[in-house]
Amino acid sequence: MSRPNLALIGATGAVGTVMRDIVSTRDDIWGEIRLVASPRSAGKTLKVRGEDVVVQALAPEVFDGIDIAIFDVPDEVAAEWVPVAAARGAIAIDKSGTFRMEPDVPLVVPEVNPQDARQRPRGIISTPNCTTLSMMAAMGALHAVYGLKELVVASYQAVSGAGVAGPARLYDEVEALAGDRSVGQTAGDVRKVLANKLSDDSPFPAPIAFNVVPWAGSYKDGGWASEEVKLRNESRKILGIPDLKVSATCVRVPVVTTHSLAVHARFERDVTVADAHRVLEAAPTVVLMDDPANGVYPTPLDVVGNDPTYVGRIRQAFDFPNTLDLFVCGDNLRKGAALNAAEIAELVAREL
Amino acid sequence: MSRPNLALIGATGAVGTVMRDIVSTRDDIWGEIRLVASPRSAGKTLKVRGEDVVVQALAPEVFDGIDIAIFDVPDEVAAEWVPVAAARGAIAIDKSGTFRMEPDVPLVVPEVNPQDARQRPRGIISTPNCTTLSMMAAMGALHAVYGLKELVVASYQAVSGAGVAGPARLYDEVEALAGDRSVGQTAGDVRKVLANKLSDDSPFPAPIAFNVVPWAGSYKDGGWASEEVKLRNESRKILGIPDLKVSATCVRVPVVTTHSLAVHARFERDVTVADAHRVLEAAPTVVLMDDPANGVYPTPLDVVGNDPTYVGRIRQAFDFPNTLDLFVCGDNLRKGAALNAAEIAELVAREL
Repeated sequence: MSRPNLALIGATGAVGTVMRDIVSTRDDIWGEIRLVASPRSAGKTLKVRGEDVVVQALAPEVFDGIDIAIFDVPDEVAAEWVPVAAARGAIAIDKSGTFRMEPDVPLVVPEVNPQDARQRPRGIISTPNCTTLSMMAAMGALHAVYGLKELVVASYQAVSGAGVAGPARLYDEVEALAGDRSVGQTAGDVRKVLANKLSDDSPFPAPIAFNVVPWAGSYKDGGWASEEVKLRNESRKILGIPDLKVSATCVRVPVVTTHSLAVHARFERDVTVADAHRVLEAAPTVVLMDDPANGVYPTPLDVVGNDPTYVGRIRQAFDFPNTLDLFVCGDNLRKGAALNAAEIAELVAREL
Repeated sequence: MSRPNLALIGATGAVGTVMRDIVSTRDDIWGEIRLVASPRSAGKTLKVRGEDVVVQALAPEVFDGIDIAIFDVPDEVAAEWVPVAAARGAIAIDKSGTFRMEPDVPLVVPEVNPQDARQRPRGIISTPNCTTLSMMAAMGALHAVYGLKELVVASYQAVSGAGVAGPARLYDEVEALAGDRSVGQTAGDVRKVLANKLSDDSPFPAPIAFNVVPWAGSYKDGGWASEEVKLRNESRKILGIPDLKVSATCVRVPVVTTHSLAVHARFERDVTVADAHRVLEAAPTVVLMDDPANGVYPTPLDVVGNDPTYVGRIRQAFDFPNTLDLFVCGDNLRKGAALNAAEIAELVAREL
C-alpha cells in the first residue's frame, strides 16, 4: 500500500514530546502524521519531521484516513476514544492501562512477542507499563533460552513516569532545598521547607528530593500498588508464561528519567553469568554494561535518552538454584513508552 | 561494680558524632567517657553529656582503666587496635567489618540475639553493617515466630553510609545542578556539569544527585559488591540460620541518611499481613507504618533521626508460599551504627 497515515493522540505530553522526536528521527515510513490532543492544546503548532503541524482537537473525525493511531492519554480517555479510532478503521496502539489485560487485545513488545501483534480482533494493540517495559527486552532474551520461572523485582522509578508534573516537582523541590546543608538529617525537616516554599499539589505522596517513596500508582487489594500488580500481570502476558511467579515492590526515586530495576530471576535451567552475557550480547536491543571490577554498570544518568535496555551487575545467586541477580536500566519515556509504541506501529505498518 | 568507664574510638566521624549524642541523651550509666581519635583530631574539645572533653590520640594507654571501648574506625585501624584494647582489659565493641565473621567473635543486635554477647572469648563483640542492621529488628521479630527461610533484598542506601564525605558530595552535586531544569534528560550531561564545577574525588563511582548507583563497597568474586555479601553472611550469623538463602542488590540513592530495603521474605510457616502486623506491633524497637490506602508507609525523610526500625508496605506474595514483601527504613547512623553499638555496650555493662 501507499505510505500509511499515522495519528499521535496526546501529542503534547511528556511521552508525546518524545514520540514526535522518535517519528522524526527513525526511518520515515509514514504518509501524513497527524497530531491530536485535548481541546486545550488544539491549535498549537508543533514540529514533526522538521515541519510545522497544527494540533487538532480529539474528535471522531480526526481518525478519518488514519491507518494507525498511537494513544498516549489517561485511562479514561483511552476507554472512550480508542474504540472510536478502531471503529473508524484505524489500528489503535494504546499506551494506557485500559485494555492491556483484555484477552482479545494483544500486549506487545516487538523484540519479545511480535507475533501477538497480528491477533488483534478489536483493532487494538496495547503497549505495556513503563516499569514492565524497562526489563522486558532483557528478560525476554533470557527467557527464550533458559525458561523464566520466578521474578522478584524492586524498582527505582524516575519521576517522569508520573508525567510532565513529575520532573517539574523534582526540580522545584531541589531548588527549594539546595544550599541548605542540613536537610535530610532531621525527620520532617524537608516537609516543613517545602510546605513554606511550594504548593502542595505534588504528583507524589511524599517529598521526592532527598527521598525515596515506596509507592507508584493506585491502591489495590492486599496493600499492593497498581504498578506492582501491572508488572506481574503484564510480564506474564508478554512472555506467555501464565504461571510466572512475580513479586514486585515499586519505589519512586529522585531521578528525572530512566527506570531501574533490581531483578532476582529464577530459570528452569542452570544459567551462569557467562551464559547470560552471551545471550544478552546477542540481543539487538540490549546493551550489556557488566564489568563491576572496573566500575562498569548502568546508571540512569548514563542511559537516559537512549533506546536500548541496559543490563549490568549480573551475578549467579549464592543460595538459589538456576537464579541470576541483575540490575536493568531503561529510559521510561523512550523504550518504556514512546519507542515501544512506535516500534509496534512500524511492525504493523510493514504488514498492512 | 562502680559505674563503668567507656571509650569512644573514632569520636569525630559521622557515626562518632551521633554516638556522642546518643550517650549524652540515653540513661547515663557511665563513669568516665573518654573520646579518642586519630592524632589529626587529638586535642579538639567536644561535648559529651553537656561537658567539654578533650579528644585523645589513639595509643595503647588510652585503654587503661576503660571497661568498654566502642570502635568506629576503618577496617585496617580496627584490625590493629581492637586487639590492643581487648589485651588491656577493655571489652571492645567494633563497628568495622574486620571481626564480624570470625567464629569466636559474636555479632550482636541486642533485640535479636542478646545471649550471643556473653560468648566473647577474645573480648570482642562486633556490630553489623548498617545495611544489614536496617532490617534486623523487623526480620528478627518475624523470624522468631514464623521461621525465616529466604531473603531477596534490594537496598536504597543513603550517602551517609559512605562517611561524612557522602552527604558533602551529595550537597555539592545538588548545588552544582540546582536551577538547571534540563539536567537528567540527556546521557552524560550531569557528568559534564559536575566535571566543570566539582573536584573528581567523589566517594561514589558515579554522580549521585539525580541518579542511583548500583554499587556499595568493594569488588568480590562473582561480581558481588561487598555490602551484598555482608548482608547475606551477617544476616545468617545474627539470626542463627546458617543455611538462610539470601540474595541482595545494593544501590546507593540520593538520600542523606536512612537506609531503606525492599524485602521479599519466605518463612517456614504461613504468615498473613495481619499476622505480621501483630508481631511487629509487639516488637519494642519496630514501628509499623502500614496503611497505604491512606498514604501511610515509611520514607527516609520521615524516619531519619529516630531510633526504631520502620516497616510498611507489607503484602502477602501472590505467587510465593509463606512469603511477605515489605519495605523497611532505618536510620543508618543511629540503629544502623552508633545506637546498636551503644545498646551492646549497655547490655554488656549491665552484666559487668
